[in-house]
Amino acid sequence: MAMKLLLISNSTNAGDSYLNHPREQIADFLGREIRKVLFFPYAAVTFSYDDYLKKVQERFAELGYQVDSIHNFNLPKKAVKQSDAIVVGGGNTWMLAKKIHELDLVDVLREKVLTGTPYIGWSAGANMACPTIMTTNDMPVADPRGFHAFHFVPFQINPHYLDANPEGHAGETRQQRIEEYITVNPDRYVVGLREGTMLLVNNNRVELIGKRPARIFRFGKDPIETEPGSDLNFVME
Amino acid sequence: MAMKLLLISNSTNAGDSYLNHPREQIADFLGREIRKVLFFPYAAVTFSYDDYLKKVQERFAELGYQVDSIHNFNLPKKAVKQSDAIVVGGGNTWMLAKKIHELDLVDVLREKVLTGTPYIGWSAGANMACPTIMTTNDMPVADPRGFHAFHFVPFQINPHYLDANPEGHAGETRQQRIEEYITVNPDRYVVGLREGTMLLVNNNRVELIGKRPARIFRFGKDPIETEPGSDLNFVME
Repeated sequence: MAMKLLLISNSTNAGDSYLNHPREQIADFLGREIRKVLFFPYAAVTFSYDDYLKKVQERFAELGYQVDSIHNFNLPKKAVKQSDAIVVGGGNTWMLAKKIHELDLVDVLREKVLTGTPYIGWSAGANMACPTIMTTNDMPVADPRGFHAFHFVPFQINPHYLDANPEGHAGETRQQRIEEYITVNPDRYVVGLREGTMLLVNNNRVELIGKRPARIFRFGKDPIETEPGSDLNFVME
Repeated sequence: MAMKLLLISNSTNAGDSYLNHPREQIADFLGREIRKVLFFPYAAVTFSYDDYLKKVQERFAELGYQVDSIHNFNLPKKAVKQSDAIVVGGGNTWMLAKKIHELDLVDVLREKVLTGTPYIGWSAGANMACPTIMTTNDMPVADPRGFHAFHFVPFQINPHYLDANPEGHAGETRQQRIEEYITVNPDRYVVGLREGTMLLVNNNRVELIGKRPARIFRFGKDPIETEPGSDLNFVME
């Protein structure tokens, strides 16, 4: 079976309701055979895993899916192995990676998803699909003991990609930060995924969905703006 | 001798020239007895250490100080021990920490500064004066093998502190990021240091210099806005 990923920049657009913008794509992606998904709430920091689960359950119930959370299983590896689909929510990428490393879930999840179990991630959950968490925007509030992530795809995603700083602010722009990343890591593509957009990955095919282009970075090349619908497969090389 | 630190939010205000805003404070801080400082260029990523040194030399020469750079010494520990003042420049905090950890300079620098050698840091260099680099805004482009920093002071600085996101952007605000930090690290103060401001630390006395207040965070308390000149010594507790 082919790898299937839906990697979403952000849960919520400014002024919109929670998980509203990607709801049709989530339903299309999971289809009608899957009835239940396994949710990872570990990116939550200032609210509880239970509260996070409830919020996601409400939205997924509207789409016809039941949601169990990994934090309610005594045997998380078994829960992953028995799941029909994996859903990893946003929040703080460092806390998410820390917990996944502590539970030793990288290998089992990688095996599961590479052999065809659908994976949905938004924000930190999209970042975790990459080789490392090195293109996160989050504050490193805890040491995850290693920057490695699920490595389903060979490129990095920068979620919530943003073009400009607020006026009068002189800190690095997002583009400057990513230029630092590719300088230190010249063999990786970085996909700057603007809010309201997502990547649909079907084995080696990558499609950009949404109303805004993605900005793609690679060391030694000018950044590329790719429109929704255009060929993005080269980032899988 | 007392510990003396000048911890500056940013090198350059929007529209201003390099290191212009803190130039008087740098001259006051170093005084007339010190003639030479030891510079750390290791936060540079997209430009060379030599270029960084040259840029800093030009500004410090105007103030009457000679600048040597640690990257030009075969024996960096010896260079630190023999220095009259330490200057750590901004850039990428992760690369700075990585290099300092690789060279095993944390302990020797800590000893040197705690016994009275003046320390100036801006941006990443201010962050390194804290217990950890966990309140950096930078992209984690490399694994520094540990998040520990010089720990001259017991509180964390968030440099380039910023109040709002650009309009229409739904990613976490800086305040939300720091709230995540204090949730995970409830025993630390975080000083959100806005651009154009700095902290002057004289042993246990902390003074805010600049034209804007600092925003101070602690778990379980509302954030505090402290004006330049007001008592900030409580963050040393």
